[in-house]
Amino acid sequence: MSSCKGNSYGKLFTITSIGESHGSVIGIIIDGCPAGLALSEKDFAKDLDRRRAGAVAGSTSRKEKDAAEILSGVFNGFTTGAPVCLVIKNENVNDADYAEIQSKLRPGHADFTAHEKYGGFNDWRGGGRFSGRITAGFVMAGTVAKKILNTLGVEIIAHTVEIGGIAAKATDYASVKKNAVKDTMFCADKNAAKKMAALIAKTKAVGDSLGGIIEGIAVNVPSGLGEPVFDTLDGELAKALLAIPAVKGVEFGAGFAAARMKGSENNDPFSINNKQVVTITNNAGGILGGISTGMPLVVRVAVKPTASIALKQPTVDIQKMKPAALAIGGRHDACIVPRAVPVVEAMMAVTICDFAMQAGLIPRVIKGQKS
Amino acid sequence: MSSCKGNSYGKLFTITSIGESHGSVIGIIIDGCPAGLALSEKDFAKDLDRRRAGAVAGSTSRKEKDAAEILSGVFNGFTTGAPVCLVIKNENVNDADYAEIQSKLRPGHADFTAHEKYGGFNDWRGGGRFSGRITAGFVMAGTVAKKILNTLGVEIIAHTVEIGGIAAKATDYASVKKNAVKDTMFCADKNAAKKMAALIAKTKAVGDSLGGIIEGIAVNVPSGLGEPVFDTLDGELAKALLAIPAVKGVEFGAGFAAARMKGSENNDPFSINNKQVVTITNNAGGILGGISTGMPLVVRVAVKPTASIALKQPTVDIQKMKPAALAIGGRHDACIVPRAVPVVEAMMAVTICDFAMQAGLIPRVIKGQKS
Amino acid sequence: MSSCKGNSYGKLFTITSIGESHGSVIGIIIDGCPAGLALSEKDFAKDLDRRRAGAVAGSTSRKEKDAAEILSGVFNGFTTGAPVCLVIKNENVNDADYAEIQSKLRPGHADFTAHEKYGGFNDWRGGGRFSGRITAGFVMAGTVAKKILNTLGVEIIAHTVEIGGIAAKATDYASVKKNAVKDTMFCADKNAAKKMAALIAKTKAVGDSLGGIIEGIAVNVPSGLGEPVFDTLDGELAKALLAIPAVKGVEFGAGFAAARMKGSENNDPFSINNKQVVTITNNAGGILGGISTGMPLVVRVAVKPTASIALKQPTVDIQKMKPAALAIGGRHDACIVPRAVPVVEAMMAVTICDFAMQAGLIPRVIKGQKS
Amino acid sequence: MSSCKGNSYGKLFTITSIGESHGSVIGIIIDGCPAGLALSEKDFAKDLDRRRAGAVAGSTSRKEKDAAEILSGVFNGFTTGAPVCLVIKNENVNDADYAEIQSKLRPGHADFTAHEKYGGFNDWRGGGRFSGRITAGFVMAGTVAKKILNTLGVEIIAHTVEIGGIAAKATDYASVKKNAVKDTMFCADKNAAKKMAALIAKTKAVGDSLGGIIEGIAVNVPSGLGEPVFDTLDGELAKALLAIPAVKGVEFGAGFAAARMKGSENNDPFSINNKQVVTITNNAGGILGGISTGMPLVVRVAVKPTASIALKQPTVDIQKMKPAALAIGGRHDACIVPRAVPVVEAMMAVTICDFAMQAGLIPRVIKGQKS
Repeated sequence: MSSCKGNSYGKLFTITSIGESHGSVIGIIIDGCPAGLALSEKDFAKDLDRRRAGAVAGSTSRKEKDAAEILSGVFNGFTTGAPVCLVIKNENVNDADYAEIQSKLRPGHADFTAHEKYGGFNDWRGGGRFSGRITAGFVMAGTVAKKILNTLGVEIIAHTVEIGGIAAKATDYASVKKNAVKDTMFCADKNAAKKMAALIAKTKAVGDSLGGIIEGIAVNVPSGLGEPVFDTLDGELAKALLAIPAVKGVEFGAGFAAARMKGSENNDPFSINNKQVVTITNNAGGILGGISTGMPLVVRVAVKPTASIALKQPTVDIQKMKPAALAIGGRHDACIVPRAVPVVEAMMAVTICDFAMQAGLIPRVIKGQKS
Repeated sequence: MSSCKGNSYGKLFTITSIGESHGSVIGIIIDGCPAGLALSEKDFAKDLDRRRAGAVAGSTSRKEKDAAEILSGVFNGFTTGAPVCLVIKNENVNDADYAEIQSKLRPGHADFTAHEKYGGFNDWRGGGRFSGRITAGFVMAGTVAKKILNTLGVEIIAHTVEIGGIAAKATDYASVKKNAVKDTMFCADKNAAKKMAALIAKTKAVGDSLGGIIEGIAVNVPSGLGEPVFDTLDGELAKALLAIPAVKGVEFGAGFAAARMKGSENNDPFSINNKQVVTITNNAGGILGGISTGMPLVVRVAVKPTASIALKQPTVDIQKMKPAALAIGGRHDACIVPRAVPVVEAMMAVTICDFAMQAGLIPRVIKGQKS
Repeated sequence: MSSCKGNSYGKLFTITSIGESHGSVIGIIIDGCPAGLALSEKDFAKDLDRRRAGAVAGSTSRKEKDAAEILSGVFNGFTTGAPVCLVIKNENVNDADYAEIQSKLRPGHADFTAHEKYGGFNDWRGGGRFSGRITAGFVMAGTVAKKILNTLGVEIIAHTVEIGGIAAKATDYASVKKNAVKDTMFCADKNAAKKMAALIAKTKAVGDSLGGIIEGIAVNVPSGLGEPVFDTLDGELAKALLAIPAVKGVEFGAGFAAARMKGSENNDPFSINNKQVVTITNNAGGILGGISTGMPLVVRVAVKPTASIALKQPTVDIQKMKPAALAIGGRHDACIVPRAVPVVEAMMAVTICDFAMQAGLIPRVIKGQKS
Repeated sequence: MSSCKGNSYGKLFTITSIGESHGSVIGIIIDGCPAGLALSEKDFAKDLDRRRAGAVAGSTSRKEKDAAEILSGVFNGFTTGAPVCLVIKNENVNDADYAEIQSKLRPGHADFTAHEKYGGFNDWRGGGRFSGRITAGFVMAGTVAKKILNTLGVEIIAHTVEIGGIAAKATDYASVKKNAVKDTMFCADKNAAKKMAALIAKTKAVGDSLGGIIEGIAVNVPSGLGEPVFDTLDGELAKALLAIPAVKGVEFGAGFAAARMKGSENNDPFSINNKQVVTITNNAGGILGGISTGMPLVVRVAVKPTASIALKQPTVDIQKMKPAALAIGGRHDACIVPRAVPVVEAMMAVTICDFAMQAGLIPRVIKGQKS
């Protein structure tokens, strides 16, 4: 009797999400973190900063300091094996911005479904539990997972491959690693990034919004991760990534393009390299039969355009049960794709870490490292 | 301490998959099936027949009678509340067809990853645990889930929307219901279906294979299903659908196309119809914030081309650890898309049924119906 | 992939424990709490006060104010359906009291096993994660569970039935309800309570400690709770109660005494009362086949004597790996039995609440009540 | 979304129970069994024979051959890593024996609670799902778990320590191992065993029944097993053991007797032996803080007297809702204690195996052994 009710994820590295956009805190609890991992509050700054608003053109002007606080599970600078509770105190919240949406459903948002499911008791301020802000907790869990995966040499990078129809040129992993991380669009193609930024600015100016596609890559993933037939590596990754608000599709390797290829084109021939079995191409995206092949794990997610737009939209006033019109004020991102990039990395890290633990590759006590 | 190790799915309607392609049985155990549901072995024939080989051009000539046998959980024609164990005895298996693949890894198959993960102890005959045949168990679970969902009026239909690049014309739900079920391609566009069949025949003749796209639709789904932030309706559906061998991508509503739309285009305006809140468009595919809206649930999966092809492919002999060439003989589908259609329905049914039970919409004892 | 790693309990009403005795906080996260339950920080005072030190003779002089703080999941005075995070800030901690135990293992404590399991990284201050203080979190979860169970009319009371060999006279539920709650021993037999208090005082004076037996009773429990064959009502209760430090045994109804009875003595004859099937006796303790009968649920737990005693004990210095002697200083209870009484109630409430939710007896949204 | 609904147990070594007393099969599915374990149908005979009826005085005359059949998960004599499905076909069932109990509730049985919970749809023949026969499946899982634990040197033995008030003399582990296994009472004290057998015969003659106490011992259990604070080693063992029909209490080490000891008596002093920390006494029964100490794990369960007795008992006819009298005919054990001994071993083995896997002590692929 130990499964969890919706807000937990992972079998052996289990994260539980808490908090609301305008409540006291946003947080994450990690149960199953090995003992002996060096961990301090400073470790979280880098990833949280990448997710933070204001870094990119078109992002909301809500300023979140987003300083991680460790409430439990760390002692003398190392994890203890007990649950690690991480919280960020919410600041700079402005409830007034949201007064109108208490009754007027925002199209494209979870206002309606949350109201239906929770009988109107949901915290609707800023979207409450359904705000993108909830992903700050995911990012903190991702930071811990990445530190654990580091001991196996696993590296995870996500990058923007498309915004508003502008696609980045395909490139190799080394270039992504070099270019995407520093760019404000987290895009490896600097030329495309410039065009994306311009389009976001232009779209924001007219009160509209844009979506895009993010690609996540994990290298040095050991072969053999994944637990078919249901708890597959791709299945769990998809589930984890769909927990990110605004994600509407997930594909692996060639993905939807594979549906238009012939078997002779899509099959990745096996070969031997350095005494290891490898595949010459990687249309499978590093996953066969739900299990990692050892080749780079490649996943892409479709991010829908931000639902909150300034343009006037027809909707319903749920309290009066009457048609209404809504022009959303307040501070919003015209495109959340770049801010979602570190979140994609985080959910990949949490998932891969959990599978590595299931495969027995992570000792229950990690020894001898200092961060 | 009651979660399961990879081969189970569902919280309250929990299915556990057993069996191998060339072992004694393929089966599924359902734990959490309400008591009082009329159930007999005949109930499974219709869905199993749709998944059966030989129905469509290009499918394998392996003949599977696929008769469901109830080993437990049913008494006097009704479920008892105890686990329902359903098996199909494997017949007409021909191990000789597969002798070569014990050592030569089939490109695009799980032969390599299964070997890595299970240290070479995996049952490799016919792909063993990674054969598409495993989905006969999924289909049986789906039949039970559909019967339970019937009590809520939920209807689930999947249909072929693309094969080898040939796309079916978009149509309404009524037409899909009318046309797709009877067609051997399970395609609502008869003209496209004809072209698909011809292309499959032609591709099979040259020893190659095709993939495609299947769309699943569920109507009359109650609003409020889904358990954010992690156990979302879309996340669980994606995971369930990626358990079907050959699925490489999943998208909901507008899906990847949404990434190229503006917020003003993609947002579905709310309206009131018959005293219910509805959306005028359905780009969300019936899901907002991981919770059902009550609008039709729409999901599409990308199916890669069948990995087993007669054309010669470069590969590796895993026992000699040497390069090798492989031309796969035996009986194989040139395109498994049509056969996967009832499997998509089944995994949708199991997932929606589980969420309906979590939402308290299914009584623990179903009373008064006779099938 | 949504089970949890040891620190969570419950399927649909899932609690996750966080915190250490001398860390920042002790807390509990509740996932699956229905929306619409009136809840404020004041609601927790009564149960926390009963667990608080200093109320009874022989309890530690460490003063814990133990004020519950709600970090998430409550909005405008009602639960929202989102995870409820409850914490108590630790105060009045005195690490100096515990300096010696960093190396000298306390006999009867988890110092050794925690050290072995977590490679010495465990927070050893005050027993850290293995301190009885952790149960303050359990009690907060119990308060919420009791509020939910109130809607079904379920009442739960635990009381002290034995301390240091002094047994309370058996009495009926009404008397327990009347007397045990107010008594500092939480014992329904005032005469025995007086003797227990005297024995505790005397034992404390010589630096030793006492154990005892607590009985928990739940009335108005609906019949049909429990999910055999493994997730039985008694099995889950036993697991939940053994999570309380110092509990070494659990029995239901006649329990171990039943092992010495004949079938004709132990079997509870069925009868009809008020159109309901009842049993005339209740040796089963309200559970048959792992499912509640509707009769009072009766469970007893054996509490070992407090391990921390002032008397000198032989032990091992784990850092020097040498024999050592230890006389434990600091503030300790000579008998924790009375303080464990509300904890027994809490774990019963959490378990029964979870089963009631599994049985579909608790709506996902609770409406119309104000606390 | 991968927990299970009542009929599964274990996190990484997960067993799912299926079948009914008078249905087609009794079975168990093991998910998470490592690949590479030598396993054949013959391996199950020894433990199943010990549980089989007819071996001891007073046991039912129903003859069950109880031959295990492997339906999946084993290939070429070794486990494959896929789910292992084990079934026993039910034979020699005599429904006529049970006709009366369809309406007359047997006191002490689950007839009433099963009827309430499953709305009368439960398979009542022979107790159906609540028959002791279900434990044949537990025993098969135990056999596999023992084989895995053998690789760690863990040994598990259960023995009868009391029947009908006749207690066996306490003895050391070596004697238990030598004497208890061969005795028909599975009792290490031959003198007491003789008296127990005589008392059972005498009690059976008058149509009554007896209960008793079974002790389980596991030696060479590695320290560090158990996942506090909720998934403790003792908590999970208690839950697993309470799944055995007729068990009404569980205690560890000194158990209920500890409630009457002083701290100075009950605390086990630490010492060093062979460079290992050990305890001089073992009142803790090998568990401190929910984690194994490395000392022998000692647990005792109270088994109530068999509920089915020939003596006439007052009860209720559930269909007529009227008082009735019932004298149970058919074939029944006058004392099931000896037959439950291998079941206690099995549930201990399954639990310890699961924790060993969680602790990373069992490789996912076991290599190089032949049975």
